Amino acid sequence: MTLLDRLRERIPADRLQLDPGVTASYSHDEAEWAPHGAPLVLVRPRTAEEVQEVVRACIEFDVPVVPRGAGTGLSGGANAVDGCVVLSTEAMTTISEIDAVERLAVVQPGVVNDHLRAAVAEHGLWYPPDPASAPWSTIGGNVATNAGGLCCVKYGVTADYVLGMQVVTGTGELVRLGRRTAKGVAGYDLARLMVGSEGTLGVITEVTLKLRPQRPPERTVAGYFSSIVDAGRAVAAVGAAGLVPSALELIDRHCLEAVDAWKKMGLAVEADVVLLARCDVPGVAGDEEAEAIRACFEQAGATWAARSTDQAEADALFDARRLAYPALERLGPVLTEDVCVPKAAVPEMLARIEAIGAKHDTLIANIAHAGDGNLHPLLVTPRGDDEARARAQRAFEEIIAAALALGGTVTGEHGVGLLKMDGLAAELPPAVMDMHRAVKAALDPHGILNPGKVIAAD
Amino acid sequence: MTLLDRLRERIPADRLQLDPGVTASYSHDEAEWAPHGAPLVLVRPRTAEEVQEVVRACIEFDVPVVPRGAGTGLSGGANAVDGCVVLSTEAMTTISEIDAVERLAVVQPGVVNDHLRAAVAEHGLWYPPDPASAPWSTIGGNVATNAGGLCCVKYGVTADYVLGMQVVTGTGELVRLGRRTAKGVAGYDLARLMVGSEGTLGVITEVTLKLRPQRPPERTVAGYFSSIVDAGRAVAAVGAAGLVPSALELIDRHCLEAVDAWKKMGLAVEADVVLLARCDVPGVAGDEEAEAIRACFEQAGATWAARSTDQAEADALFDARRLAYPALERLGPVLTEDVCVPKAAVPEMLARIEAIGAKHDTLIANIAHAGDGNLHPLLVTPRGDDEARARAQRAFEEIIAAALALGGTVTGEHGVGLLKMDGLAAELPPAVMDMHRAVKAALDPHGILNPGKVIAAD
Repeated sequence: MTLLDRLRERIPADRLQLDPGVTASYSHDEAEWAPHGAPLVLVRPRTAEEVQEVVRACIEFDVPVVPRGAGTGLSGGANAVDGCVVLSTEAMTTISEIDAVERLAVVQPGVVNDHLRAAVAEHGLWYPPDPASAPWSTIGGNVATNAGGLCCVKYGVTADYVLGMQVVTGTGELVRLGRRTAKGVAGYDLARLMVGSEGTLGVITEVTLKLRPQRPPERTVAGYFSSIVDAGRAVAAVGAAGLVPSALELIDRHCLEAVDAWKKMGLAVEADVVLLARCDVPGVAGDEEAEAIRACFEQAGATWAARSTDQAEADALFDARRLAYPALERLGPVLTEDVCVPKAAVPEMLARIEAIGAKHDTLIANIAHAGDGNLHPLLVTPRGDDEARARAQRAFEEIIAAALALGGTVTGEHGVGLLKMDGLAAELPPAVMDMHRAVKAALDPHGILNPGKVIAAD
Repeated sequence: MTLLDRLRERIPADRLQLDPGVTASYSHDEAEWAPHGAPLVLVRPRTAEEVQEVVRACIEFDVPVVPRGAGTGLSGGANAVDGCVVLSTEAMTTISEIDAVERLAVVQPGVVNDHLRAAVAEHGLWYPPDPASAPWSTIGGNVATNAGGLCCVKYGVTADYVLGMQVVTGTGELVRLGRRTAKGVAGYDLARLMVGSEGTLGVITEVTLKLRPQRPPERTVAGYFSSIVDAGRAVAAVGAAGLVPSALELIDRHCLEAVDAWKKMGLAVEADVVLLARCDVPGVAGDEEAEAIRACFEQAGATWAARSTDQAEADALFDARRLAYPALERLGPVLTEDVCVPKAAVPEMLARIEAIGAKHDTLIANIAHAGDGNLHPLLVTPRGDDEARARAQRAFEEIIAAALALGGTVTGEHGVGLLKMDGLAAELPPAVMDMHRAVKAALDPHGILNPGKVIAAD
């Protein structure tokens, strides 16, 4: 008997896909340059019990299982290894509960982030985590990578909204972790341990998410700066003033030019760096906060700073931020960095990125969740230019080293996957890497859950 | 060579205390009825390196180490076992950093919660977690138990403020876990795994805490109710209306009477149940929220509901809440429960507690973080009455069973310690208990870290 025989015996045939043309398209996420293998089979289960059957079969036949959501990851965390089972949760799209009094939702892992947000909005509720991939990425993937987004600066990341989950463990058990109550300290926080573990400790089959009441409309404040240093000073000033914007984004000249070249928005004519802030405190206090943010921008040397009174204009500015990535992709493959540094180190980090780009003759554009110190240098290389790619790879590594030197981390919100495995080993001392390996061995004793990701196999 | 010889060799002699009169007073926390043994020695280290020496010596001589903060715990988590080393962090009281731009503080574990709050206030910052023990309990103990408090209902629990920590591991390594940056997903969330693990996975030697800007003054809204059911309906109405009070506390007649008997406040004359809400949204929007909360109280059947316009009056009401515990202790030893149920189940849970008290002829008073569904039934027995104590023990167990039956958890914020070990095993299925044991064995391979707490030894 083979693994495929066992799978056919245990789950409906239409869940299995062997066509190499199809499986190939499920063999990697959106991380440029991360290696990947060819899966044996793609499985798209519909229930937790089917996921359990897949994991049990993989244990029985000692075959790796690589879970994935929508495949929008940027670190290679969902990349296939040769001969593995790719387990896509995309068909598990049921929202089984939305409770306005408890302020929670219970969802299958394949529910798309934006779909959940829309569904809970009908109950007067709000699910904050808003990664740029929100129109496509799934809650399961968001939880497995602890996805961030724009509003994290005020509202936290995915982990802050996970109350509990159901997972299939590395021993093939289907269990509930965490809770449904507002508080709870019963035992180790294994639900939280699963968050961000990128499928290496369990396969998520359901998530119980904390929700917030819907919030008041946001105000937008924009600032144009003629230097990164001035913009960095503005970010620090906002923090030091005790202000808590609901978004604080930075877009640099390279991004503005790329968006201009595509959409003719005329942004780069006016600014070298744009800061975009949002503010959602209700009423007059919110107006005061928006004005205080504008004043911080101006005092830090903004060439222009204003609260947007026109919603269309405000949306256009945030569109420019959203369009930066696809605009740059028109110039060539984009390798996305994801370092996070102390907020006060943002100007220094941006200066180092600029120097690294110059040194390696690599176009590096920057978008950043500036209020969090989470930078996304975007390394663009001309298509098919292997030398440029090698230079960009060195720049990528030097950016990681620079972030660590400034007290930062190698990944703020995209996860380790494959691309940051060396970075993780550089960030964590050997004793902490040993703790990782001990936890991995404890919870995945057969070594079948997304092996070779996050930490190297023994 | 003995353990004591090794300790004398490695750390200054004044850190060791062998006097049985002193060690006895460090042999248990404030959990009534939880068993405890007699320590071999009390150690009060001053540095992380000294903690490391203690743990290494305990590994070498196979002696359990029981860490403790101020000993204000209510579950027996810090109770000594015979022949153990009790490691008190009370002398580790340095606040080494407060950073207003990064909004973080770095502290030794022995820093008292209220001292930290006062110190960061001088920088315009706020540390929210506010357990009732805040004047005495330490950050190390708060982190080890994931302490809650009054403002959790809006601002979350201790875990939500832990960015990173330094710990001595079960293998005697001194390591940093977590981060200093606002965001970070580099590897497994081992810092979070330590939070609430009650000293069974590592000994905390330093904590990096997230802070918030200081908040605007709070408004107080009080509601008097003639029944628990009406009060419960008011709590649900506040949630359903999308309101987020910064505290929402319930005090029942037994507490009011005990406070009256002690402090002559005349509270029980006016109400059977009091709800106290706070609201800290700034400006007019906050006034509107306070009014909306008041309206919810009134519509749910409050006999009297008003926003307090007098700060002294407001403080007196919250004093009554704070005084409930010592007022009841005047009547006899108090066994404190800590169940947490879905918010909508609060009235039903309170009704069941009342029935359980009647059935077992036990005085059960209730204070509750009602907005979180976190109830603290206080079981009072006459001093020296063993039969009453046996009845109260049965009531305690039935309350746990009732909470689980309503979809709740056996501990909302006090931790498992010794008192809730049976409850934990009832709450979690065997496969999840196995995961706990696997993680414990992975991170404490010598089994010396607070053995016999949270989960039974193999």
